[in-house]
Amino acid sequence: MLDDTKADVLKRINFITGHLDGVRKMVEKDTYCVDVLKQTYAVRRAIEKMEAIMLDGHLRTCVVEGVKEGREQEVVAELSELYRTGR
Amino acid sequence: MLDDTKADVLKRINFITGHLDGVRKMVEKDTYCVDVLKQTYAVRRAIEKMEAIMLDGHLRTCVVEGVKEGREQEVVAELSELYRTGR
Amino acid sequence: MLDDTKADVLKRINFITGHLDGVRKMVEKDTYCVDVLKQTYAVRRAIEKMEAIMLDGHLRTCVVEGVKEGREQEVVAELSELYRTGR
Amino acid sequence: MLDDTKADVLKRINFITGHLDGVRKMVEKDTYCVDVLKQTYAVRRAIEKMEAIMLDGHLRTCVVEGVKEGREQEVVAELSELYRTGR
Repeated sequence: MLDDTKADVLKRINFITGHLDGVRKMVEKDTYCVDVLKQTYAVRRAIEKMEAIMLDGHLRTCVVEGVKEGREQEVVAELSELYRTGR
Repeated sequence: MLDDTKADVLKRINFITGHLDGVRKMVEKDTYCVDVLKQTYAVRRAIEKMEAIMLDGHLRTCVVEGVKEGREQEVVAELSELYRTGR
Repeated sequence: MLDDTKADVLKRINFITGHLDGVRKMVEKDTYCVDVLKQTYAVRRAIEKMEAIMLDGHLRTCVVEGVKEGREQEVVAELSELYRTGR
Repeated sequence: MLDDTKADVLKRINFITGHLDGVRKMVEKDTYCVDVLKQTYAVRRAIEKMEAIMLDGHLRTCVVEGVKEGREQEVVAELSELYRTGR
C-alpha cells in the first residue's frame, strides 16, 4: 500500500473501531434495536468506503505493475474474485 | 433486546472488534491488499449476521407488541426504512 | 397485493423488461462493456425499488393481519428470511 | 465483448427476461407477495452473475490492453467507479 493510502486506511480503521465501541455501549444500555441497527449500517458503509480506497490503490499499483510484468492472468483472476465476493 | 439476544450480540461485537484489530495489524505490516480486503469482507459479513439476529429479535418482540397495541403504522414504517437502508 | 400496489408493480415490471431489452440491444451492437454494466446496475436498482414497494405492502397488510390473527411466529419467520436472502 | 462471452450474456438476458415474465404472471394472479419477492431476488442474483461474467471479460481484454497501451489511468478510474456503483 502506498504511504498515503496506508495512513488514510489506518485512520479509518481507528474511526470504525470507535464507532463499534459506541454500538457496544448502545447495546449494553438497552438502546432501541432500530437505532442500534442504523449505527451498524453506518459501520458497514464506512468499511465499504475504506475498501473502495484500498481497491483503488491496489488497481493503481499492483494491478498495473502486474499487467506490465506479464502476470495479467493472476491479477485478473484475483480482481474477478474480489468483485464477486465483496458484494 | 431479550437477554439471550443481548448476550449473543455483545459476544459478536467483541469478536468483530478483535477481527478489525487483526485487519489493522495486517495493514501496518504491509500485507498484500487483496488479503486485507478478504478480511474486511469477512468483517462485514459478521456484522450482517449480527444485524440479522438483532432484526429477528426486534420482529419477535417490538414489532409484534407494536401491532397488538395498535402502533402498526409506526412499526411498519420503521421496518420499511430498515429494509431499504440496510442493503 | 392491494390494487394500487399491484398496478404500480406491474408498471414497473414492464419498464424493467423494456430496460433489459435495451441492454440486449447494447450487447448485440457490441457496446462498450462498462456502459452495458452501468445499465444492468440500473436494472437491479429498479428491481430493488420494486421489491421495497412490495415489501411495504406486505408489511401493511399480511404481516399486520397475521399478527392480529395470532400467526405471528409464521409471519416473523418469513420476514427474517426475506431480510437475510434479499441483500 | 469476445464472441463466447457475448453468446453467453445474450442467453442469460433471454433467460432473465423469461424469469421476469413469470414474475409478472405471478403478480397478475395475486400470488403471495413473499413468493413473488423470492423470485425477484433470484432475478437479481441472475443479473449479478451475468455482470460478473461481463466484468471478467472486460478485465481480460479491455483492461489488460488499456494498461499495455498506456491508458492505465482511464481504465483504473472506470474500474474503481464500477466497483463502487455495482454493489
